[in-house]
Amino acid sequence: MGLRIVVVGSGAIGTYYGAHLAHGGADVQFLMRGELSEVRHNGLYVRGRVESFRVANVTCYNSTKEIGPRDLVIVAVKATSNGDLLNLIPPLLHEQTALLTLQNGLGNEEFLAEHFGAERVLGGLCFICVNRISPTEVKAYDPGTLVIGEYIRSASRRTHAIASQFAACGIDCSVTDDLALERWRKLVWNIPFNALSVLAGGISTAEILADDGLRRATLALMDEVIDAANACGHALDKAVAQKQIKRTEKLGAFKPSTLSDWEKGKPLEIEAIWGEPLRRATAAGANVPQLEIIYALLKSLETKRKEQQSS
Amino acid sequence: MGLRIVVVGSGAIGTYYGAHLAHGGADVQFLMRGELSEVRHNGLYVRGRVESFRVANVTCYNSTKEIGPRDLVIVAVKATSNGDLLNLIPPLLHEQTALLTLQNGLGNEEFLAEHFGAERVLGGLCFICVNRISPTEVKAYDPGTLVIGEYIRSASRRTHAIASQFAACGIDCSVTDDLALERWRKLVWNIPFNALSVLAGGISTAEILADDGLRRATLALMDEVIDAANACGHALDKAVAQKQIKRTEKLGAFKPSTLSDWEKGKPLEIEAIWGEPLRRATAAGANVPQLEIIYALLKSLETKRKEQQSS
Repeated sequence: MGLRIVVVGSGAIGTYYGAHLAHGGADVQFLMRGELSEVRHNGLYVRGRVESFRVANVTCYNSTKEIGPRDLVIVAVKATSNGDLLNLIPPLLHEQTALLTLQNGLGNEEFLAEHFGAERVLGGLCFICVNRISPTEVKAYDPGTLVIGEYIRSASRRTHAIASQFAACGIDCSVTDDLALERWRKLVWNIPFNALSVLAGGISTAEILADDGLRRATLALMDEVIDAANACGHALDKAVAQKQIKRTEKLGAFKPSTLSDWEKGKPLEIEAIWGEPLRRATAAGANVPQLEIIYALLKSLETKRKEQQSS
Repeated sequence: MGLRIVVVGSGAIGTYYGAHLAHGGADVQFLMRGELSEVRHNGLYVRGRVESFRVANVTCYNSTKEIGPRDLVIVAVKATSNGDLLNLIPPLLHEQTALLTLQNGLGNEEFLAEHFGAERVLGGLCFICVNRISPTEVKAYDPGTLVIGEYIRSASRRTHAIASQFAACGIDCSVTDDLALERWRKLVWNIPFNALSVLAGGISTAEILADDGLRRATLALMDEVIDAANACGHALDKAVAQKQIKRTEKLGAFKPSTLSDWEKGKPLEIEAIWGEPLRRATAAGANVPQLEIIYALLKSLETKRKEQQSS
């Protein structure tokens, strides 16, 4: 069907899916910050255990004005950069342009809906473990699956068309009628692993799972998040926790994105991953003591670091 | 009555109480590690808002063999150095020598009882905020109170004699018949403040209380500790939490001892302050999710730092 696609944001997720789409022959362009010449010259590499390829010719720009209107905008910037989207997205829109956010946490569909219209918005959950190694290379620990859904309706013809485009390019993509449920399912993983990897001193998922106390804390946090999801009306099964632990055990020494951000001195997605879920859980009457403490600690760590960076 | 006293350990607590005793005219000697000449030459300074004095002549030694038997041994080393006491204490003992541990956390009386006989052992809780500024100087944020009690019996003539000796030297010292209850009362403070000061990125008690999230986490942790104390059979009142918060608000930018240890690269008293209380709480069936997570995080931080120090 030939969707004209643009990927906004060139972190691990944007690069991985964009490279897959390009490799599969889709019409995809990239908005990237910073220096483009390296990507234009070297292309993009995806390296993984089950997939390894190079995209030689990458169409990338520094400005969305150079790109112009597209059919599908894949939003893959950090949630902490959502403010930038107010300027970045308008040049990409025609009347039917769909906005698919692949961002972490809660609140991103709401942000896009508020500024660009709810009917445009879809969300995708990347149950995947990828790290960006350099501007031209991502390492895939686990190709995983992508689950996409509409923000304000059940899956439609549009949703299936987008999923087909992904599938045609070798991405395991499925469609959900309940995007919010899938968002909470992903949080069951992100809330413990992304937090503990930073708070415990900069450690990988393998180190978290090898430490009895942190493993118990991970399971307890997963339980809290599942209870919170249920309190918020999303019927998430308790068995999700053990399934995710088993999957994570196969990853090896994977660094969650928040640890990568922390090590690079970048802002952490604290409100999207912990703040908004905590607020919704509390409003729904859920008891989430461990989520409360890790949220407070992460906020303080980031504040402290900003003070140090500016002094 | 002229107790012959020795203070073993020259951190903030040992120096503060030892200096007070010496200043009040008690017969007190100090076991100190490292260089003694500075203390012998300059004396010891206590500086605080409500008390400031210097002890000019300090009798201090590097070895307890030079000191010989005393009537009262004040144990003020870090709980992480308890192993050293096996060699340090025997030269100080005569048949009636009493051992008073002023250490933090749970398990210290048990350790002394096991190795030197339970009948010798007393414990003291220092509800006090002091920092060691240099080998010759402690800063007192709050002179506070000292509560002492017997390990295996109610307060006896010995207990009151020791308390009188402290009181005669200007220390607000009272006697309890329930040492275990007082230990838990102190943990209500140490468990949140000592942990959060480190985990939140190296911040003072004032910064913890000024941060809404950390203040809530502090109160939630205090609540958990009070519930745990009650589950363990110690009737601690819920009102303890608010009383301690109020007292802490008056301290200003105080650094809990664990933060001082962390900044100096010293071992943290993790098992005494968090590990042993957690084990006793769990054995008594208490639900302590926040205590579990901060214990796991502190252990991991320390392990990670040891790896970095040794590499």
